[in-house]
Amino acid sequence: MRTIKVKTASASYSVFVGDGFVNKVSALVRPLVAKTRGRIFVLTSPEIWALWGERFTGSFPEQAKPEVLFLPAGERFKRLAEVERLAAELSAAGADRSSLLLAFGGGIVGDVGGFLAAIYMRGIDYVQLPTTLLSQVDSSVGGKTGVNLTTGKNLIGSFHHPRAVYADIDVLNTLPDRELRAGLMESVKAGIIRDARLFSYMEKNAARILARDAEALEYVIATSVRMKAEVVGIDERESGLRMVLNLGHTVGHAIEAVTKYRVLLHGEAVGWGMLAALQIARGRETVTDAQAERIERVIKAYGPLPGFRATAEALAEATARDKKNRAGTRRFVLPVGIGASTVVDDVSEAELLAAIEQMLGRR
Amino acid sequence: MRTIKVKTASASYSVFVGDGFVNKVSALVRPLVAKTRGRIFVLTSPEIWALWGERFTGSFPEQAKPEVLFLPAGERFKRLAEVERLAAELSAAGADRSSLLLAFGGGIVGDVGGFLAAIYMRGIDYVQLPTTLLSQVDSSVGGKTGVNLTTGKNLIGSFHHPRAVYADIDVLNTLPDRELRAGLMESVKAGIIRDARLFSYMEKNAARILARDAEALEYVIATSVRMKAEVVGIDERESGLRMVLNLGHTVGHAIEAVTKYRVLLHGEAVGWGMLAALQIARGRETVTDAQAERIERVIKAYGPLPGFRATAEALAEATARDKKNRAGTRRFVLPVGIGASTVVDDVSEAELLAAIEQMLGRR
Repeated sequence: MRTIKVKTASASYSVFVGDGFVNKVSALVRPLVAKTRGRIFVLTSPEIWALWGERFTGSFPEQAKPEVLFLPAGERFKRLAEVERLAAELSAAGADRSSLLLAFGGGIVGDVGGFLAAIYMRGIDYVQLPTTLLSQVDSSVGGKTGVNLTTGKNLIGSFHHPRAVYADIDVLNTLPDRELRAGLMESVKAGIIRDARLFSYMEKNAARILARDAEALEYVIATSVRMKAEVVGIDERESGLRMVLNLGHTVGHAIEAVTKYRVLLHGEAVGWGMLAALQIARGRETVTDAQAERIERVIKAYGPLPGFRATAEALAEATARDKKNRAGTRRFVLPVGIGASTVVDDVSEAELLAAIEQMLGRR
Repeated sequence: MRTIKVKTASASYSVFVGDGFVNKVSALVRPLVAKTRGRIFVLTSPEIWALWGERFTGSFPEQAKPEVLFLPAGERFKRLAEVERLAAELSAAGADRSSLLLAFGGGIVGDVGGFLAAIYMRGIDYVQLPTTLLSQVDSSVGGKTGVNLTTGKNLIGSFHHPRAVYADIDVLNTLPDRELRAGLMESVKAGIIRDARLFSYMEKNAARILARDAEALEYVIATSVRMKAEVVGIDERESGLRMVLNLGHTVGHAIEAVTKYRVLLHGEAVGWGMLAALQIARGRETVTDAQAERIERVIKAYGPLPGFRATAEALAEATARDKKNRAGTRRFVLPVGIGASTVVDDVSEAELLAAIEQMLGRR
């Protein structure tokens, strides 16, 4: 087991990466609620619960089983209407400010669960138990929670940190291969923007990692989380450094929006977005051609990135609504060599279109 | 003009109580947004805008008029569905993290506007320009924002402080008399729980205050705000002291819930709720009979409190869902003499029912 401490201006908690957590949830979370009457609720998806529910509840005593709330799978349920339904269920079941919510599922369960905890009675405690690689390395850490609007992804949300994160590698055994690969894109991103060692490790050990070797996965997950924890510790609210975590996300979100979140997994869209950012970086010479090829090779090693239909114009237009934009400028994260990155505000329409065209040429 | 500083662990801002603010909004809020491109949005109600909109926009230059969003009047629009609609309007109009939202209206506009600002793109800045006495003395200060569920009031929300609050006494001139009186209930509450001087002032000057004497109103509003600012400064998140602000709110919220928010104004419900709390306090001898009579007389001086239909049992049942409750206990604020208060956890069902019966007997 590896433990990573997250320490921000507003919160301090640990991320635990290891195995067997699902078998002892009760012991792990009991200390976080009031002794006698603190209630525990679980938000999960029907699919995850069918696979792991029995083991999950097994550690709780018969008279204190947690109440289970369900969020159907799919980005289209990441909406305020579902949050309202879940809040009403919490309320009807008697949840109060001393209750604890466990978010047991992938990124959507984590984002919706975190947001539900953020706004139910103006904030209750929650714990993340991420079940996908993507949510283990990325979304469960850092306190970002939220839901989508029809006009864009994550346009509604809160910063609300969990009390703890338990990333159980065992649970990854039931994760479809495509989701594993998509999740690893965020680790590739972590390496590119801030950790040359992680990047090299992933470059050399692709076969071992993709074969789900437990030791390799534990290293990749813990190292990705450590990178993110450092960044979030320095800049919790994304006023500066934290922005670098968005490498690949400007165009990635645009692809997701234009394809209505139905074609690609988030990590796959980020993979494409990183290829687009790489073109801008190459044009501005923040990376050499050799570095760009190395980065592209690693992105592809964790692919394949499935294709999608969209015009460059539609994608460029969709980036205009990105949350990172301020007062009309277009904000972009670019790699600087391998293991470093920068944020720029002055990407022109032409530069963006050219980068998207080059990315589309790689489909 | 009187200025009250609010200083909490997470925010620091000023509440300005005076007149003429509506005529110079542009000058007041310009310093709060990015010089060239920071956009300004207004959330208001159609009624307030019809009365004050022209004066409000008059101070903005022709090429930089704020965009106006509307929330229909009434508690039934204090819901997540409206927040989602408003967020989509902000998004469609190009609002980004550098945008500023002005909440210009009563308590519902303030609560919804504050919550919208709290969760739009995970938080944008906002300014409160409260137009009712209730929102000037209470809801615009302290950072509590939120909406209702069908199962209860304010069950969804965030703590999100405004950058500034401008309470303009001029605007109170168009406030219906009943709303003025209801708002003054929160000032009566402020006096009872923590400010014997304010209580005495309100006891002696009821006629002047109800006649809307500007000087008297400025004193009452600023003093009520100062009391609340002190409490919130000590306990931002309502883990202790802040709870005392809820005097009258346990039963008050229950009355509102049982009558479906259609019969009484919030301040009127709080007035009734204070009468109920007073019965419990009297039974426990935290107030003398003489003090209780004095308090009851002042509550009635700012009445009349309109009647409503509800059984004691239904009201008692509705208090069970109160947000102040923790892990199954029933939490109550009680006056201790005049100008002090305490929070108790051990009000029995019988004690509560008796207090509600006595309150109902005063209809």
